[in-house]
Amino acid sequence: MITAPSREADVIIVGAGISGMIAARALLAAGLTPLVLEADDRVGGRILTEEALPGLPVELGAQWIGDTHHRMFALAEELGVQTFPQYDDGETSYQLAGSGVLRQNDFHSRFGAELAELEKVLRLLDELAAEVPPEAPWLAPHAAEWDSITAGAWYDGQGLSPVARTLLEICTVGILAVPTVEVSFLHLLFTIQTCGVTSELFAESEGGAQTTRFVGGTGEIPRRLAALIADHLVLEAPVLLIEHGAEQVTVTCRGGLVARGRRVIVTLSPTLAGRIMYDPPLPGVRDQLTQRLPNASAMKAFFVYDEPFWRADGLNGQLISDIGPARMSNDTCMPGDGRGVLLLFLEGDQARTYGRLPTDRRRGALTAELVRHFGPKAAHPECYVDGEWAERQWTRGCYNANCGPLVWTTFGPALAAPVGAIHWAGTDTATHWSAYMEGAVESGERAAAAVIGELGG
Amino acid sequence: MITAPSREADVIIVGAGISGMIAARALLAAGLTPLVLEADDRVGGRILTEEALPGLPVELGAQWIGDTHHRMFALAEELGVQTFPQYDDGETSYQLAGSGVLRQNDFHSRFGAELAELEKVLRLLDELAAEVPPEAPWLAPHAAEWDSITAGAWYDGQGLSPVARTLLEICTVGILAVPTVEVSFLHLLFTIQTCGVTSELFAESEGGAQTTRFVGGTGEIPRRLAALIADHLVLEAPVLLIEHGAEQVTVTCRGGLVARGRRVIVTLSPTLAGRIMYDPPLPGVRDQLTQRLPNASAMKAFFVYDEPFWRADGLNGQLISDIGPARMSNDTCMPGDGRGVLLLFLEGDQARTYGRLPTDRRRGALTAELVRHFGPKAAHPECYVDGEWAERQWTRGCYNANCGPLVWTTFGPALAAPVGAIHWAGTDTATHWSAYMEGAVESGERAAAAVIGELGG
Repeated sequence: MITAPSREADVIIVGAGISGMIAARALLAAGLTPLVLEADDRVGGRILTEEALPGLPVELGAQWIGDTHHRMFALAEELGVQTFPQYDDGETSYQLAGSGVLRQNDFHSRFGAELAELEKVLRLLDELAAEVPPEAPWLAPHAAEWDSITAGAWYDGQGLSPVARTLLEICTVGILAVPTVEVSFLHLLFTIQTCGVTSELFAESEGGAQTTRFVGGTGEIPRRLAALIADHLVLEAPVLLIEHGAEQVTVTCRGGLVARGRRVIVTLSPTLAGRIMYDPPLPGVRDQLTQRLPNASAMKAFFVYDEPFWRADGLNGQLISDIGPARMSNDTCMPGDGRGVLLLFLEGDQARTYGRLPTDRRRGALTAELVRHFGPKAAHPECYVDGEWAERQWTRGCYNANCGPLVWTTFGPALAAPVGAIHWAGTDTATHWSAYMEGAVESGERAAAAVIGELGG
Repeated sequence: MITAPSREADVIIVGAGISGMIAARALLAAGLTPLVLEADDRVGGRILTEEALPGLPVELGAQWIGDTHHRMFALAEELGVQTFPQYDDGETSYQLAGSGVLRQNDFHSRFGAELAELEKVLRLLDELAAEVPPEAPWLAPHAAEWDSITAGAWYDGQGLSPVARTLLEICTVGILAVPTVEVSFLHLLFTIQTCGVTSELFAESEGGAQTTRFVGGTGEIPRRLAALIADHLVLEAPVLLIEHGAEQVTVTCRGGLVARGRRVIVTLSPTLAGRIMYDPPLPGVRDQLTQRLPNASAMKAFFVYDEPFWRADGLNGQLISDIGPARMSNDTCMPGDGRGVLLLFLEGDQARTYGRLPTDRRRGALTAELVRHFGPKAAHPECYVDGEWAERQWTRGCYNANCGPLVWTTFGPALAAPVGAIHWAGTDTATHWSAYMEGAVESGERAAAAVIGELGG
C-alpha cells in the first residue's frame, strides 16, 4: 500500500519568500510549529540573485532598500548581512522627446520649465495621496472619483508639456511596471502613500527607495532566513488544494505531499493565491478580487564590463529615455570589485515587447541604447544576463500587483481579511511599502501575529 | 495497492458547458474519442435552469438567443428543443435622472432630444466598431488609441446630457456586466463588432440578442447535449494539473482521476483556465493574459406571481432605472403557464453591492423597486429565486470576461492560440457573438476542427 507523505504543523505557510519565512520565524519564536511549502526549488520568491560571473552577483529581482525601510535594515543586521550605498556620483544621461542624448546638466538647463511642471504635479500627487488611508484606500474622501479614472487619464488631464508628461510616465512605470492607463488613479495614490511621498519613490530623486544594497547580494537575506527555519521548509511542493475548517487545514501539493495544521498563511501574490483550489470555496468577493490583481510586467538586464568606464566620464550610469527597450538604467557594480555593471530596466510595454524576443535581439537593442548614452565601450560587455518574470511559473510577473479602475473600492476589503482559518500575507497585502521587501516583512509579521493571537503563543 | 482511477481518450475536454460538449460531439462524429471532465455536479456551465415552482423553470444564467444566432437555432432544432418569442407587448417603465417613474410614451415625449443624442452615439459606435476585426481586435487601425482609454472615459468625452449618458451606461452594463470604466474602449468596440451592431446588442431595441427563448428552459440544450455524449462525460472532476507533451496529455483531477489523451481542449473562462497548473508551464504572455480577463459581476432575481398583472396595465414588464438594485427587468413568463414571472438584472455595481447582502435585504430592495414601477401587486410574489455567479466555485462570475486597457493590444493574440497539445475554447474565445451561447458553439466547433486537423478524423 502506497502512503502519501504527510507532515503535521500548527501553521502551514504557502510560499518561501520573505513574508512566508518571516511569518515562520515569528511563529517559531512564539512556540508554534510552522511548515513552509515552496513551489520552486529555491527560496526568495521575487528576490533572485544570480552570479553573472564568478564572485559577481546580479539581482534579477528585488535589489534595493531605502532609508525608511526600517524592518529590512533591522532584518539585515540581525542576519549579519552588510549593506552599502547605491553609487550615485555623476550625471544622468537623458534622451527624451526627440532631444537627442543630453547629459543631466544640459538637460536641466534646456528643460527647466518642464522639470518645474513635473515638480508641481508631484507635489499635487503628494497632497492627494496624503488623503488615502493605506490600510483602507476605499475610505479616501474622493475614492469613488479617483478609482473611476486611470492614472494615465489623470496625467493626461494635467495639461503637461510632452517632456513633463513623458518623464512622469517613465517615473511611474518605473514603480508600477505597467503603463499608467492600466491602473486606477486611486491605486497610484495608494502606491505613493504606502511609501510616503513621491520623492521617496520616483527614480530621479536622491534617497528614496533605492539608496542601499546588500553585500553578497539581496539573496543573502532569504538564504539566511531559510537557514533559520530549515527544519520547517519543503521545496518543490506546489500547492494545489487547501481544505479548511474552523480548526483544521489540509494542504495538498503536487507530488502528493499532504500537510495538516490548524491555520494556513498564503503569501503568494493575489493572482497566484487565486489559483489554488479551496474547499469550501472562498467568498465571491475574494475570488473576484484575485481575478483583478494582475502581476506587472518587468525584467532586468545586466551588462558586465571590465571596468565602470562611465564613471570616468562623469556619468552615474543612469539613463532616462523615451526610446529604446529600456527607459532607465543604473550602475550596479559591487563594492571591492573592479568590474563595471550596468542594469537596464524593461518595464510595462518594454518588458512585453522585448521580453518576448529572442535573447540575441533583445540584447542587441539594449546594447545600441547603452552605446548611445555611454559610448562605444558599452558595445563590448564581458557578460550579459537577463530575466523575465512573466515566464517564471511560480512568480508570473513583477514587481507587484496593480489595481485597475474600481478594484480598490469594490473588492479592496477582501485583500488581507482572513477567511476562516486562512490568512493572507505577501507584500501586495502590506500597508507600508507595499510591493517592496519592506512590505513583505510587514505582511509576514502581521499574519503571524494574527495567527498567534488565535492559537495562543 | 491503491490504483488511481484512470481513463484514456483521444482528446480530453475540460468543462461541460456548451463549447465542451459541442467539441465532444464533433470529435465523436469524426471518429475520435473525447472525454469531458466537468468540475461541477451538473453540465451547462453558465446555463442554469432551476424550477422556481413545480413546472416553472427560471434561468439563473443564459436565457435568450437572437435572430442571428444561427448555430444555436440549428442546435435547438437538432436537439428537438422548441423555441418561443420573448414577450414584448406594451410599454417599458423608466425612472432616470430624477424623472420619477414614467411610462415609455411619456418618457419618449419628455426626453426625445436625449434619446436622439443616444441614437447618434450608438451610430458612431457602430461606425467605429466596424473597423475592429473580431478575430484580431489588436489590428484595428486605431487599436492603440482605443485600447488606452476606458469605454467610460470615451462616453464621458461625448458631451452627452445626463439622461443620455445614464441610458448609455445602463445599456452597456447590461451587456458587459461591469461599469464602463473597467473596460477598454477597444473591448467595447470588439463586443459590438462580435455581435454585429449596437441595435443587435442593446436592450432597448426590438430584435437583437434577446428575441427567443426555449420551451422547457435553456437548460434543455445542455441536458440533451449531455445525453448524446454520456459515455464520454465525467462530473465532479475538477482539473488540477495538465501535463502536456507533443503527443500526450495527462490530466489530473481532484479525487485522483487521471485522464490521458493526445490533445486537450480547455473550455473554461480564461481566468479559470489560468488556475490550472500546467507542466511544462505556459508561455508568459498566455499566463499574464489569464491574469487580465476577469469575469464580470452579474446576478438575476425572479419574482413569480399568480398572474402577469403588468400586462393588463399595458406594460411589457421591462424597467430601466438609475436608482435601486436593478437597472433593468424583463417579463419571463413561460408559454401556456398562467403565472407571471418578472426577472430583475443586477449587473456590475448592483451585483457587487446587493449580491453581498443577505437574501432578505436584497429581496426587499428589489421588491420596493418593482412596486414603484408595476404597482402594489408586485409586493406579493408567490416565490422569489436568485443566483449570484461570483459565489459559484466553477464559474466565478458572469456573463463573460472583459478586457481592461491594453489587454487586447498586448496580450490578445494569446487568447485562442493553441499551446502545443493544448487548445482553448469557451465563448470568451469566439469571434462571433463572443460571451453568448452562440459564441460557445462557434468556439467548440473551432477547437474540435483544429484537433481533428491535427489528429486526423
